[in-house]
Amino acid sequence: MRGANRISGKELEMDLTPVRGCRDFTPKDAIARARVTDVLRSVFQKYGYPPLETPALENFETLSNKFAGGEEILRETYCLKDQGGRDLGLRYDLTVPLCRVIASNPRLAMPFKRYQIQPVWRDGPIKTGRYREFTQCDVDVLGVESLKADAEIICLAQDAFEALELPAKMKVNNRKALNALLEKAGVPKEKEVQAILSIDKLRKIGFDGVLRELIEERGLEEETARAALNSFKEFEGKNNEEKIALLEKKLGNCEGVKELKELLAFSNSFGVQDFVEIAPELARGLNYYTGTVFEVYALDNEIKSSLAAGGRYDDLVGAFAGRERVPAVGISFGLDVITAAKDFSVGESVAQCFVVPVKDCFDEAAGIADALRAEGVCTSIDLLDRGLGKNLEYAAKQGIPFAVIVGKKELKEGKVTLRNLKSGEEKLLEAKDAAKIILG
Amino acid sequence: MRGANRISGKELEMDLTPVRGCRDFTPKDAIARARVTDVLRSVFQKYGYPPLETPALENFETLSNKFAGGEEILRETYCLKDQGGRDLGLRYDLTVPLCRVIASNPRLAMPFKRYQIQPVWRDGPIKTGRYREFTQCDVDVLGVESLKADAEIICLAQDAFEALELPAKMKVNNRKALNALLEKAGVPKEKEVQAILSIDKLRKIGFDGVLRELIEERGLEEETARAALNSFKEFEGKNNEEKIALLEKKLGNCEGVKELKELLAFSNSFGVQDFVEIAPELARGLNYYTGTVFEVYALDNEIKSSLAAGGRYDDLVGAFAGRERVPAVGISFGLDVITAAKDFSVGESVAQCFVVPVKDCFDEAAGIADALRAEGVCTSIDLLDRGLGKNLEYAAKQGIPFAVIVGKKELKEGKVTLRNLKSGEEKLLEAKDAAKIILG
Repeated sequence: MRGANRISGKELEMDLTPVRGCRDFTPKDAIARARVTDVLRSVFQKYGYPPLETPALENFETLSNKFAGGEEILRETYCLKDQGGRDLGLRYDLTVPLCRVIASNPRLAMPFKRYQIQPVWRDGPIKTGRYREFTQCDVDVLGVESLKADAEIICLAQDAFEALELPAKMKVNNRKALNALLEKAGVPKEKEVQAILSIDKLRKIGFDGVLRELIEERGLEEETARAALNSFKEFEGKNNEEKIALLEKKLGNCEGVKELKELLAFSNSFGVQDFVEIAPELARGLNYYTGTVFEVYALDNEIKSSLAAGGRYDDLVGAFAGRERVPAVGISFGLDVITAAKDFSVGESVAQCFVVPVKDCFDEAAGIADALRAEGVCTSIDLLDRGLGKNLEYAAKQGIPFAVIVGKKELKEGKVTLRNLKSGEEKLLEAKDAAKIILG
Repeated sequence: MRGANRISGKELEMDLTPVRGCRDFTPKDAIARARVTDVLRSVFQKYGYPPLETPALENFETLSNKFAGGEEILRETYCLKDQGGRDLGLRYDLTVPLCRVIASNPRLAMPFKRYQIQPVWRDGPIKTGRYREFTQCDVDVLGVESLKADAEIICLAQDAFEALELPAKMKVNNRKALNALLEKAGVPKEKEVQAILSIDKLRKIGFDGVLRELIEERGLEEETARAALNSFKEFEGKNNEEKIALLEKKLGNCEGVKELKELLAFSNSFGVQDFVEIAPELARGLNYYTGTVFEVYALDNEIKSSLAAGGRYDDLVGAFAGRERVPAVGISFGLDVITAAKDFSVGESVAQCFVVPVKDCFDEAAGIADALRAEGVCTSIDLLDRGLGKNLEYAAKQGIPFAVIVGKKELKEGKVTLRNLKSGEEKLLEAKDAAKIILG
């Protein structure tokens, strides 16, 4: 495949494919992606979250902060030096830059909300659906201890998938509850984080796969590993209230369970109880989460990866700043997985009509294109002096719904011919009326 | 300044400023930037240009193609290797990636139009207004030999600055005319490209600066350099038609002058003759331009750098593809210089109202926030259980125009208190009616 684009010309033989693991988005896909980010932006803003932008490059010192992504992610960081010899890296997520911004602007009013839609880079293995450049759409609120913030994020996520018309549900858990469950199963405190990294793969590699990993890679006793995994099985087939009751029975007066109950109550306030599914096995692969964790998955969909995920990370910002704790909770929507889970494409073209000047009528046609644009119609015009047939063919192939034909005949009557490129139907009318029909 | 953010905490001493030459855009600035890109996108789409996205990373081989940016730009390219040892670089413009995409997709229908709004990186000297990461907003049309395409781009640019309400004009020239002028002044053919790089700085370093550079750095005879620069002076104070006439008189039947005349005629067709100013000294610093070159500058503004610039580059795409010529013309809008030339900011917040639950009314207030959002109001809600006064203060400081107060008193009547945070005026009314007032 890669060789296919190795073109040998007179002057050069060059590989014209994108960098390994990265992609070009030609118009059809780029239009679809813009539709998704426009919907997400508008939902984020509906909840009062403003945008933030940070540089692609970060000081390597920032990225390698021990409180941030951890060994596994740091291994996948693209590293480089600038001409001044500074050690830099491409950001691997949008959370670390957010923490840096907050830490370096101590006078920002709290709560601080922001969304951020930017690419991130990881020089890791390439599999189906895993790329080295991918776009994250993050929403976070900082400075709120109350689980109301977690519930607001859940509510926003529900709204976002509703607006995307992509049926989905959210699994919710609490790290403190998960830790308590593992402790009860006999997992030693010092192996908890490692165990959680394996349990996070339950949906991907199944019970037996995780069991093997817990024993072979994480060094748990088989009995302990089985006990830990079995304790999750007891929750299967229960509803949220029953799961909470069972957690309470198992763990008693555990803070994690109290938080889950409270979160469920706030979710009711926000009216999103049906979107939420308590999932005691849900772990999330990052070690900086401190409480709530969640993960959105698509209903009735081939895509099994999470469409969005996040949680509470109360210690990270403070660690960056070397100052007091800044409670924080956020969610990250994956633009690439969302566009893989549903086809958002609407064609190659953004033009709603294509103006075709019949010979010697370019001047007048340019004026009509201008008038159509003034009416709000996205309008393309023939720049090649092609014949009528060729032009109609080009426009139809681009998926442009209408052609506006401007010839001597039309001009004499002060009108244009509007042609519906799907039905072939034609009408002679004034440009203004054509605009109305095109805009629907 | 940089030291100010070096925070020494218990755990770490870390530089929290952005990477040298790069910037964080906190909400106020990010909102302003999003406003500008939204306007640009909508104008680009009105002309039928769809989006394209390409990766930040390119193979170094692509970036260093001898037909592309040239030595000067390549020196400023951020280089890195991936874990597979491949030589990569961060893209330094959006033109080279476009050429690569076109060259690697030989079946794309022509004309091919696209816009592309993405950051680019150059590891060069930092001065006022020059950054190492900056965002370009490019619009190009490929496959059109006719100068109608150049005129369409001019028309689009005029529309864009009108939509941005940023008074501007465009200088237009033709490289073939410029070359002919230089030849006539006695500049040797082999020194033309070098001379053009200096002449491009006329506005920045003035007549004497360019003269010195032409002599000392580009190796021209003083007499030749003076003759070249003086030939531009004769055009001062003339209108477009007079300039064309003078060019014809000086250069006779020169192709560049013919093209300028034709472009001016098409600009009339598109109704943008008043936006265009023929500028025989305009060079543009890149050596891949082949015909039309243009540059937009702000009227009555402190910013002297061009707000947008571009031209025709008929040989570049074919050179990349190692195949037949693909005529091309495009323009690049500088997001950073545009936002420097005019203040597009509208505050720290995107929220149009802030819901304040008075004690024990959070549930009902959350429902009201939900209802306001359903009406299309961007709504934030207090998550901190702060008192009324603190909340109103926070909302006003964020620049949120309205507060919606929800207490027992309001709930009993099935209403809310709408408070205008500027005037202090309060009204008791139904949430729906509050939404109407907020939306204006």
